[in-house]
Amino acid sequence: MMQDNTKNYENGEKQKTWLIVGLGLLGGKYAQVLSGKGYRVTGIDCDAATLRFAQERAYIRAGALPGSEDFTTLVQQADYLVFGLYPTAFLDWIKQYGQLLHPGVLFTDVSGVKRGLVEPIQAMLPAGVEFIASHPMAGRETSGITHSAEVAFAPANFIITPTEKNTPAAIAWCRALAETLGFCRITTLSVAEHDRMIGYVSQLCHAIAVGLMCASDNTDLACYTGDSVRDLTRIARINDKMWAELFLWNKDNLIGEIDMFEAALTQLRTRLAEGDRAGLEEMFRLSTARRAAFDQKEP
Amino acid sequence: MMQDNTKNYENGEKQKTWLIVGLGLLGGKYAQVLSGKGYRVTGIDCDAATLRFAQERAYIRAGALPGSEDFTTLVQQADYLVFGLYPTAFLDWIKQYGQLLHPGVLFTDVSGVKRGLVEPIQAMLPAGVEFIASHPMAGRETSGITHSAEVAFAPANFIITPTEKNTPAAIAWCRALAETLGFCRITTLSVAEHDRMIGYVSQLCHAIAVGLMCASDNTDLACYTGDSVRDLTRIARINDKMWAELFLWNKDNLIGEIDMFEAALTQLRTRLAEGDRAGLEEMFRLSTARRAAFDQKEP
Repeated sequence: MMQDNTKNYENGEKQKTWLIVGLGLLGGKYAQVLSGKGYRVTGIDCDAATLRFAQERAYIRAGALPGSEDFTTLVQQADYLVFGLYPTAFLDWIKQYGQLLHPGVLFTDVSGVKRGLVEPIQAMLPAGVEFIASHPMAGRETSGITHSAEVAFAPANFIITPTEKNTPAAIAWCRALAETLGFCRITTLSVAEHDRMIGYVSQLCHAIAVGLMCASDNTDLACYTGDSVRDLTRIARINDKMWAELFLWNKDNLIGEIDMFEAALTQLRTRLAEGDRAGLEEMFRLSTARRAAFDQKEP
Repeated sequence: MMQDNTKNYENGEKQKTWLIVGLGLLGGKYAQVLSGKGYRVTGIDCDAATLRFAQERAYIRAGALPGSEDFTTLVQQADYLVFGLYPTAFLDWIKQYGQLLHPGVLFTDVSGVKRGLVEPIQAMLPAGVEFIASHPMAGRETSGITHSAEVAFAPANFIITPTEKNTPAAIAWCRALAETLGFCRITTLSVAEHDRMIGYVSQLCHAIAVGLMCASDNTDLACYTGDSVRDLTRIARINDKMWAELFLWNKDNLIGEIDMFEAALTQLRTRLAEGDRAGLEEMFRLSTARRAAFDQKEP
């Protein structure tokens, strides 16, 4: 079944037109890879310089600003779309322009949160148009299409988050897209599972890194550090608009993770304040064992 | 002055006998490097297998267990010593055996905390024996002499922490030792400055990594993670006995750092709970700016 779909995809897909809406870091990378493999790719972005950059490098063969003359044409011509927008902008876009999509259209996204986004969008689509959500976990500290070439898909996770509204064909299409893009680790999670997972593996870590940098201005100590601070705060360089979106859209999960983390840190602090050596050593052994188990699961 | 000392060190030092007390990860590495450069190195360790390992690989030319027949001889023959012991054991050792050291002896240590250690030890030394404390910031997640060969000194910081009891000659000796070992970044801090710095750049980071691993058993999510969790928790693999010592000996500084960090994380949590998008974005911009300044100071 999967084999057949993949084959169909490879054989017939070159006639289809892909439209990338939002040519940021990831949208730009999708355009670059798909065009590089011979697919017909167009693009929409609200920034004219981004469109020029994409066209000059042949990431897209045509581009349009929202509301421009060509915009409606590009949207109506699209067979497949990828939305590289922040969640709020993505939802607004579908509300405003979703009716332009023709029956048979399939589309996906790159959004780092899924609840409150996938099901509302699926509910407002015209008949015959299908949204299969996915999350390429290949973000970086940089943003914008000028950094797209630096993105590496192969070692990253690609998560597909189907709902009961999705068809096996659309799920297979999304998987084939991930394979075309070069992802080696493609998995499927429910929308809820995805957001719980991302609250821990990504958002909590970013919250900690931001907290550590905001706690005090210790930049004068940078010259003394080993790898510890560097590793813990690398992800504190953060796109403020996008991460505010991601945090707010996954607020309950992230607050739950922060609370669990703070409880553990408070326990450590209490044991330290009480001079409880055995209690500290117990936490260190637990953290060591969990981290070791974790290393064994690394790719 | 520094040049002369270094020259004297290089010319006359090969006749001196170095004794490494505690052949762990760092003590073992000191022995390996000094022996490899032609210095006369002996060793003391409470583990017979460690002594065998060190002798078989010619890290030391003679070794002894504490309390053994050869022990007193090795201590009395030593001109220079390096203590690779945990703080408590180091203090106990000097109390018990310090009187065996002969006038003219210089020694240093590798301890990650300095207050409560340096001044008490200096106060109990026989006349003519000098302790100049230092901290090679080259620790790893591993421990023990079997991992010493993996330690890299060149990119690490070497901190010398003199007190008013130290002579310029001893400080120069310690600096020359660091150069011989291959450290490129050698600096001097007061005992108090060192412990404040280490409470932030090392201990707070380890406390956070341990807290993150102890917060909940999310090892089932390891297969979904990007680099974030991996980077934040690498140092959660921790030597429980040593780190309990380091935390407890620097309790006040570390608790202060944890409190500052928790206040920042709580601020982030509050802004998140209140849906304060502008407040979150402000924190993200601050963390980004500080981390960027930090990157510029990296070696």
